[in-house]
Amino acid sequence: MSAVAAVPTDEAGRPLFELPEELAIDTDVARRVIGGFIRGQLQQAGFERCVLGLSGGVDSGLVAYLVAEAIGPANLLCVLMPYRTSSPASRADAETIVDDLGCPSELVEITPMVDAMFGRDGVAGAGGASDLEASALRRGNFMARIRMAVLYDRSVTFGGLVVGTGNKTESLIGYTTLFGDNACAFNPIGDLYKSQVRQLAAAIGVPRAVIAKAPSADLWPDQTDESEGGFSYPLLDRVLYWRIDRRRSLDEMVELGFERALVERVERLVAVSEFKRQVPPIAKLGPRTAGVDYLYPRRRPGSARD
Amino acid sequence: MSAVAAVPTDEAGRPLFELPEELAIDTDVARRVIGGFIRGQLQQAGFERCVLGLSGGVDSGLVAYLVAEAIGPANLLCVLMPYRTSSPASRADAETIVDDLGCPSELVEITPMVDAMFGRDGVAGAGGASDLEASALRRGNFMARIRMAVLYDRSVTFGGLVVGTGNKTESLIGYTTLFGDNACAFNPIGDLYKSQVRQLAAAIGVPRAVIAKAPSADLWPDQTDESEGGFSYPLLDRVLYWRIDRRRSLDEMVELGFERALVERVERLVAVSEFKRQVPPIAKLGPRTAGVDYLYPRRRPGSARD
Repeated sequence: MSAVAAVPTDEAGRPLFELPEELAIDTDVARRVIGGFIRGQLQQAGFERCVLGLSGGVDSGLVAYLVAEAIGPANLLCVLMPYRTSSPASRADAETIVDDLGCPSELVEITPMVDAMFGRDGVAGAGGASDLEASALRRGNFMARIRMAVLYDRSVTFGGLVVGTGNKTESLIGYTTLFGDNACAFNPIGDLYKSQVRQLAAAIGVPRAVIAKAPSADLWPDQTDESEGGFSYPLLDRVLYWRIDRRRSLDEMVELGFERALVERVERLVAVSEFKRQVPPIAKLGPRTAGVDYLYPRRRPGSARD
Repeated sequence: MSAVAAVPTDEAGRPLFELPEELAIDTDVARRVIGGFIRGQLQQAGFERCVLGLSGGVDSGLVAYLVAEAIGPANLLCVLMPYRTSSPASRADAETIVDDLGCPSELVEITPMVDAMFGRDGVAGAGGASDLEASALRRGNFMARIRMAVLYDRSVTFGGLVVGTGNKTESLIGYTTLFGDNACAFNPIGDLYKSQVRQLAAAIGVPRAVIAKAPSADLWPDQTDESEGGFSYPLLDRVLYWRIDRRRSLDEMVELGFERALVERVERLVAVSEFKRQVPPIAKLGPRTAGVDYLYPRRRPGSARD
């Protein structure tokens, strides 16, 4: 029997989210593969615990459930890192998830660190910029990197690896902060499109309110990914799936019914964000250069190879 | 004629640094290769300017001279980011380099951001730890990540790519902060051992005081890399060169005259730090997964490939 679950519905009988047919996955298989991946990554690195940043959104929510299922909730530390403008509803959703899982959690307000850089209310901070001057994008990227720095500090105090929570859609179009939210020890959902994240989240028991709400980077009130990017996730996921996974040409995409301009726009986003998915290049000068022709698999101590 | 320069000497006629014979490079070739690399990286990404964090040490100092030589000093922003415990001598050295190159510079004190996390003088900060509790290592890693976040902010305001300043020695033994000082758009000296950094620095005109001083992460007063790590750079460089670049076995290393215990210790450091030189693994679920079997070269817009 297939474990491709039907899309759950709300009280009014409407589907909680849109799941394009070709993107439906066998959620049992995905949970098993991801659980083994999480345990394998920890074992290879010599760790037994994980740390993640829980925003209240569906991506980090799903990862919390997946990690708790794989290694037990006691071994997962969820860190809530709100900024002063963060949505209280997001924080409430994060707290619901922590309560539901019964895992340890910590609250670290990033407001003092961020405001120390940009100032507040027009007064310049250490970075020489006032809150009024610094663009939302600059502040948002800085916030993502501060959260990474806090998570890696908690990685030491809790003794766990930092788990990534970025999905395949945002990774491919580059809707991530380099060395910020895309920084991690490993990522269990980096190969799942947003629609698939929702499908798996529904199967594993992430609260319906978290699954149904509009995805948002929560950098300013009422921001949503889809209004900012100008496309819907189900459509974007389908374009990426057919273009990247199924390797359809531009003409074939048009034959499949996609708008040429949209496909070209998505392609451009993918092309210009390659640097976010790769190790920084090094000028080659010696016989063997890390990332160029020094390409070892990850190793444990004592397993050094020639 | 070979451009393998003699090691410069101080006033008393003593060599400024030790350069193992097998590590000597042709500095003219290295400058040409690195200059082309810097211009090529910028061109590929569509940028004309660079940003780097200038500590006053020889690594970032050398990179500043290399970038200034490659694209002109006006296109390089040097950012000085001292913490309250940072050595005033380091800052003076950084200012000397800025003056010598005639490039723009900015001073961003990271003290307020770091102290907002860890508190100060026993009072807990946002991260719940006081300065007295947080280990020097935790604070040092946090500082490195804050500096990265500041540099990437300046990357936006100055319109330049962040240039890495880590050398091959520290990269191979993992003496770096992941997503901190090892984070960059590209790294011109990542394939040069510390001894080679000094050689090239002498050739390009980095101030002699910067070349001759003991390398330090400057996380606490009088810290030096070599006292912390328990080995000298020339010896460590030789071990890495013969083991990694020249692929000698452990037994062959001993025949070459290296202590077996030292070689084994260095090997262990290299093995356990592979994760710092690689993209975080993603659980493979779809037909094509970034970093696994989705391995595109970097591209400019309009050059999307199937």
